[in-house]
Amino acid sequence: MKHKIPIPTIKRFPSYIRYIKQYKENGVKNVSATILANDLRLNPIQVRKDLAFSGIEGKPKVGFDIDQLLDALIDTLGWNNSTDAVLIGAGNLGSALMGYKGFENYGLRIVAAFDKKEDIVGKTIGNLEIQSLTKLEEYILLNGIGIAILTVPASQAQPTAELLVKCGIQAIWNFAPKDLSLPENIAVQRTDLATQFAVLSAKLRSNLIKETKVDNSDW
Amino acid sequence: MKHKIPIPTIKRFPSYIRYIKQYKENGVKNVSATILANDLRLNPIQVRKDLAFSGIEGKPKVGFDIDQLLDALIDTLGWNNSTDAVLIGAGNLGSALMGYKGFENYGLRIVAAFDKKEDIVGKTIGNLEIQSLTKLEEYILLNGIGIAILTVPASQAQPTAELLVKCGIQAIWNFAPKDLSLPENIAVQRTDLATQFAVLSAKLRSNLIKETKVDNSDW
Repeated sequence: MKHKIPIPTIKRFPSYIRYIKQYKENGVKNVSATILANDLRLNPIQVRKDLAFSGIEGKPKVGFDIDQLLDALIDTLGWNNSTDAVLIGAGNLGSALMGYKGFENYGLRIVAAFDKKEDIVGKTIGNLEIQSLTKLEEYILLNGIGIAILTVPASQAQPTAELLVKCGIQAIWNFAPKDLSLPENIAVQRTDLATQFAVLSAKLRSNLIKETKVDNSDW
Repeated sequence: MKHKIPIPTIKRFPSYIRYIKQYKENGVKNVSATILANDLRLNPIQVRKDLAFSGIEGKPKVGFDIDQLLDALIDTLGWNNSTDAVLIGAGNLGSALMGYKGFENYGLRIVAAFDKKEDIVGKTIGNLEIQSLTKLEEYILLNGIGIAILTVPASQAQPTAELLVKCGIQAIWNFAPKDLSLPENIAVQRTDLATQFAVLSAKLRSNLIKETKVDNSDW
């Protein structure tokens, strides 16, 4: 990434990639910002600005070479190097994510799973055997893992995250229902399903009693 | 919900509920906004305003009765009535969510799963047998289901959502990587794991090359 890319632009990149892959499957050779903007119901000026961050230039009246643009977008997101991740906390959500094959489509591969509960260590979920948390540090160091998926209970989120940082992890995808306090150089992304369902419930109740309208946008 | 509750307040409610449950387990009888604010590292004035939406009043120097407050918060979010949901699309992500028991903690119960691929109809995941999409309308009407979890591929998201609305569904939790265009009275919440991983990847790359700092906040 040569320049700092705005977060809203990064959020739109996966949609661009999905659509461009679709065009390619249909035999399309060139694509313009206008076509993408139409299909995604976005502002064409915005799409043009976003695509400029890929470093690829379109040709007037022809648009972008579809292969070049696709490679550049994928490269910009870092999805071309399959990113190996460890998962910590093989409870319900952790097990569900271990069994989810969709991550590989965007370059994330869960290569090992760990839990501190000794009674589930040794069990296999998907293709992965759950390992003891005592083996975590050695595994991360030996395999040069950079990303961890955190699916432990809220009470264990902060100490587990600190352990991960101590082991050299640089990015944490935090599914635990708890904010983490970590050094600035650690990348953190939080996904809290409880909070997202709370918002849906509130929208539903609000719509049902028809008193007021709650903001329906994606946040 | 007597008044319109701001979305940021609703987003904090699940954390309040988790912490208050924890206090209760530890034998605590009363809790103040100040204690919650400290433990959650939030502004006490904000927490006081949030809790006011529960309709419960605290007493000076004593705080809130913990049972009353907990009930009121849960009631405000609608988590006391276990909400029955159907799941559409029993692929990788759908199967993972079918096996995830954590939803029941906040009142969401997946009671049936449907897919249009006839070769997986009849298979059992968790305790649920995958049913044919042709039985969806009858099931929703007979069981008065209000919520649907949408885990179909992007290309099928819009037509499937329209079918759900036709069947009487009032709220859709959309995990498909596609924005939906639906009537205003339908509550929609979107969770796009690809987008969230894209942001984490970008933060990581940005940190690694140390050129600039990307906003690290939860959005």
